[in-house]
Amino acid sequence: MATASILGCAGYTGQETLDRVLAHPGLELLALGSDSLAGQPAAALDPRLDGSLPPFTTNAEAAASGADVLFLCLENAAAAAFVPPADAVVVDLSGMHRLVDGAQALAWYGAAPGAWSYGLPELFPAQGDLIANPGCYATAALLALAPLAPFIESATIDAKSGMTGAGRTLKASSHAGFVLENLSPYAVGAHRHAPEIAQQLGVPVCFVPHLLPVRRGLLATCYVQTDADARALLEDAYASSPVVRVLPEDVAPELARVQGTDAAEIGVFSDGATGTSIVICALDNLGKGAAGQAVQNANVALGFDETLGLRLAGVLV
Amino acid sequence: MATASILGCAGYTGQETLDRVLAHPGLELLALGSDSLAGQPAAALDPRLDGSLPPFTTNAEAAASGADVLFLCLENAAAAAFVPPADAVVVDLSGMHRLVDGAQALAWYGAAPGAWSYGLPELFPAQGDLIANPGCYATAALLALAPLAPFIESATIDAKSGMTGAGRTLKASSHAGFVLENLSPYAVGAHRHAPEIAQQLGVPVCFVPHLLPVRRGLLATCYVQTDADARALLEDAYASSPVVRVLPEDVAPELARVQGTDAAEIGVFSDGATGTSIVICALDNLGKGAAGQAVQNANVALGFDETLGLRLAGVLV
Amino acid sequence: MATASILGCAGYTGQETLDRVLAHPGLELLALGSDSLAGQPAAALDPRLDGSLPPFTTNAEAAASGADVLFLCLENAAAAAFVPPADAVVVDLSGMHRLVDGAQALAWYGAAPGAWSYGLPELFPAQGDLIANPGCYATAALLALAPLAPFIESATIDAKSGMTGAGRTLKASSHAGFVLENLSPYAVGAHRHAPEIAQQLGVPVCFVPHLLPVRRGLLATCYVQTDADARALLEDAYASSPVVRVLPEDVAPELARVQGTDAAEIGVFSDGATGTSIVICALDNLGKGAAGQAVQNANVALGFDETLGLRLAGVLV
Amino acid sequence: MATASILGCAGYTGQETLDRVLAHPGLELLALGSDSLAGQPAAALDPRLDGSLPPFTTNAEAAASGADVLFLCLENAAAAAFVPPADAVVVDLSGMHRLVDGAQALAWYGAAPGAWSYGLPELFPAQGDLIANPGCYATAALLALAPLAPFIESATIDAKSGMTGAGRTLKASSHAGFVLENLSPYAVGAHRHAPEIAQQLGVPVCFVPHLLPVRRGLLATCYVQTDADARALLEDAYASSPVVRVLPEDVAPELARVQGTDAAEIGVFSDGATGTSIVICALDNLGKGAAGQAVQNANVALGFDETLGLRLAGVLV
Repeated sequence: MATASILGCAGYTGQETLDRVLAHPGLELLALGSDSLAGQPAAALDPRLDGSLPPFTTNAEAAASGADVLFLCLENAAAAAFVPPADAVVVDLSGMHRLVDGAQALAWYGAAPGAWSYGLPELFPAQGDLIANPGCYATAALLALAPLAPFIESATIDAKSGMTGAGRTLKASSHAGFVLENLSPYAVGAHRHAPEIAQQLGVPVCFVPHLLPVRRGLLATCYVQTDADARALLEDAYASSPVVRVLPEDVAPELARVQGTDAAEIGVFSDGATGTSIVICALDNLGKGAAGQAVQNANVALGFDETLGLRLAGVLV
Repeated sequence: MATASILGCAGYTGQETLDRVLAHPGLELLALGSDSLAGQPAAALDPRLDGSLPPFTTNAEAAASGADVLFLCLENAAAAAFVPPADAVVVDLSGMHRLVDGAQALAWYGAAPGAWSYGLPELFPAQGDLIANPGCYATAALLALAPLAPFIESATIDAKSGMTGAGRTLKASSHAGFVLENLSPYAVGAHRHAPEIAQQLGVPVCFVPHLLPVRRGLLATCYVQTDADARALLEDAYASSPVVRVLPEDVAPELARVQGTDAAEIGVFSDGATGTSIVICALDNLGKGAAGQAVQNANVALGFDETLGLRLAGVLV
Repeated sequence: MATASILGCAGYTGQETLDRVLAHPGLELLALGSDSLAGQPAAALDPRLDGSLPPFTTNAEAAASGADVLFLCLENAAAAAFVPPADAVVVDLSGMHRLVDGAQALAWYGAAPGAWSYGLPELFPAQGDLIANPGCYATAALLALAPLAPFIESATIDAKSGMTGAGRTLKASSHAGFVLENLSPYAVGAHRHAPEIAQQLGVPVCFVPHLLPVRRGLLATCYVQTDADARALLEDAYASSPVVRVLPEDVAPELARVQGTDAAEIGVFSDGATGTSIVICALDNLGKGAAGQAVQNANVALGFDETLGLRLAGVLV
Repeated sequence: MATASILGCAGYTGQETLDRVLAHPGLELLALGSDSLAGQPAAALDPRLDGSLPPFTTNAEAAASGADVLFLCLENAAAAAFVPPADAVVVDLSGMHRLVDGAQALAWYGAAPGAWSYGLPELFPAQGDLIANPGCYATAALLALAPLAPFIESATIDAKSGMTGAGRTLKASSHAGFVLENLSPYAVGAHRHAPEIAQQLGVPVCFVPHLLPVRRGLLATCYVQTDADARALLEDAYASSPVVRVLPEDVAPELARVQGTDAAEIGVFSDGATGTSIVICALDNLGKGAAGQAVQNANVALGFDETLGLRLAGVLV
């Protein structure tokens, strides 16, 4: 049994992390941090949270709670300012510690990276106790492309994400009057998950994200030129994975099958006219794309079975 | 003043064509063809259609109505079986007459092409009276890429379409229980708009369509390698167009601005990491992607101003 | 020809009013007021607005522009502080001037009503130049119930509205992550459109609004006990209306047929088990529920045909 | 340990029942019946179903599988024709056996009721082995109103349901082109869940259902006149329920909190102007409204804890 505290519990990723910690047979929740809810009972966040949970503390109090694992579900600036306590596993769900190159980190996040290790369990297991949890888009793109990386020179990634991927902060582009019955590309060729993907793949990528009128779920359609057998490489990479499923030939991933879960699914296709290999990955931006992966990273660091607390079954309809 | 009849009026494209014909100051509606509604009053289709309209006839009767222009809004098989009357302009909104190469037409549509001419007014004005109206995906991809065609060797087209693009016919993939809160790629690397796009561009294309949980609207994100100045070429191509709008730098198209209209908008971007030119086109699959373009083609053939009957203003919100 | 200026042009109702003024053959746009956009070109609001429009001014400048008609598309507080210029027709789309009883106005809006006249053209034509434009829910409920008012003692109104009804201001309940794939009742039995409806009907009403995951459109399902022939009363009330359509027996209104338009449709039903009369009204919250009705009110005040500038045709699909 | 077989596994309710049976620690799946999928592997239904499941059989074979409990997830006609085997608990999710009055059953379902018992565990525990599982709308209305039944003379129920409530069968009203960005009342004052609700309440009800553009979830807003303390009665009725949650004052139910779960939540309000008691119940039409309740009914009949296999935790976001 290990203890866990969450910082930034009132945001989407915080709430989802809480959900998984509560379902985790090996984790005991120690503190619920949220500067906006500090002092209030857990039910202030959601009427389903009952009185057996501790009331909210400040994030600073949660950080000092002495937990074995801390989940940082904070905005980038707050994550940058966070000083990790000694002897704790810390999983940072923000973007601040993902880019290892100093110039890149400064250019995209305005701060130097620290001694954090990028952790995507199936491909890049984290080293040490300070774990940078990957971005949602990056997770999908890397699951689709990392096994092919030695055999490609670049990649084009066209990604589509549900609204919760942009966080709970209010902005014009998160207003339902803008989102509903709409589809909008944004940060075209200039999104900070692009350097993150390129860093891990070792090849340059062209990345365009689009905002979908769905609550959750993310799909990355990836285009590469390669002589390798993409299907064989991907099936081999995930043959024993309880999380990532390579679909049979001619079956395409879809959001509905991964929403609300921590699983990912991958479809592999070849275009007859151009010979392009098309690899499509679907996952839930808040599941494998955030909180599910954070708990998976914590499981690996703490020596638990990597799927404890994860939602892998899903709703069939 | 010219007369118009519509065949297949009960489907989405038929209904939208009817809408535009009714708004057209130079067209008089002669016959409303629909084999399923023949004999019924116009209001059987929609309570907004009033008693001043003629009742539905069979499609055969509508074809023989002596109209100056016939709009074929039929399924492919019915369009293939249609025998054009002499002396009428015929605009076929089905896919049957788009591919000019006999082998291609046979492979993708199971039938030889006839003496029809592909008509996309801004780029490929139709010749003669038998006009093959382009596919919705093809229209978006061609508006984005045709001006660049001399300067590219291939293209990757990632497209996303609202549900009405698949027609009113009931199928598992059009069931709202499947579509809502979902995103699904389909016909990956194997959709018949791909050879249509390649035919008009003169270069091979890799094309992947996705089904969006929106009622109408289509967005094509196109990736090409080129040394040419994509923005200059596109702005030049559409400088005088009342239909196609090239957006300012850093402004991306979005569905909301083109839904319910016959306009298209194009955004042009360059990816810093890979040098890829990204051209994004948004239109309404039932507007510029179908009925709007059909009426535009008819306008050109009949000598009307090309925008008569078209919806170009749109709803601001 | 008359001149018009709009205050609060950057919100949903302002933008929609602008749309109709631009389409109006008898109105010339004089000033585009918006405190947040003052000094910027019209295209700053939407790339579809071209250079022929005047740049944005402050709301104060727009108010002093000398226009024949002013449309106030402001938040309640700003509308309350507005001092009408002499000799102008002013249509206030806010809620500030709808309640005529001083105590009610104070209780629900925190301010005394002034010398404004409630204007719902089909039922309660405004008197004088200062016109309080009805609320969106109130419009739907009143169109459904006012013709029955002499024959009922109370009414139950269950209403459902699209997201734009809540305005463009950012709040937790307008975040797409909250709205999508959700339905939420709010202000249950305590919404300020209830006293507005009761004031015009002359009977008490029980009113519950629900937030729909749609961009626009509003449907009010109204339940009353009456001995009168509800259908006959409603058909009689709207027999000559170009805006309100009473549907045939067994046909129910639906959002899709009124979205993007200034029309309303009404269905009339009787419940066999309880004898309840059920009257359902659908309209677009931004059309007949706001901007469309504002322009209609202005038309009446200025002596124009009441439908000038209105969108009554709609999209068939 | 008991054995279970499912008939009609390819529909929405069948698939959801399967999901819960697979998660149930006390049930072993014996046969997967589906006439359309008979002979195919389980994965033919969904790629997430793996090779450890039995292949599909016909429904007749599943009925004869000797299981301790049979879940009938069939269309009404097939459920009517079903002959229950001796010694098995049978839970019928169709509507055929819900109405106990012969004339009513004939009028609404075209067939006489048999010796089945209506089973809504919190309110009307089934007697015997043949259990008629309540309708989704009826479940929500009864959870909201049954505790108040002795104190009311009639009720008005305005209900809104997600699309999966209408089943997977293709029809015009389930086409996404109809459902998206729409809201449509249907069977106004004439839906067969009305007599079912009235039968269990003992008072007449006026019932109007509306189709929502959401995949799953149902909300019933119920209006009654009563002198009783509605909140006290409801809190008392569900004080010990692990499934039904009465929300605190001023908190309204919403779909998002119950989707994907077998829980229900109830909000209680009073309207100041008319004294109407407003009770709102939200549940998932496929959870507590169908498959979750079916498994709950089976648990009670088999002597299991009533929540085994149920999804009560839910996703927080």
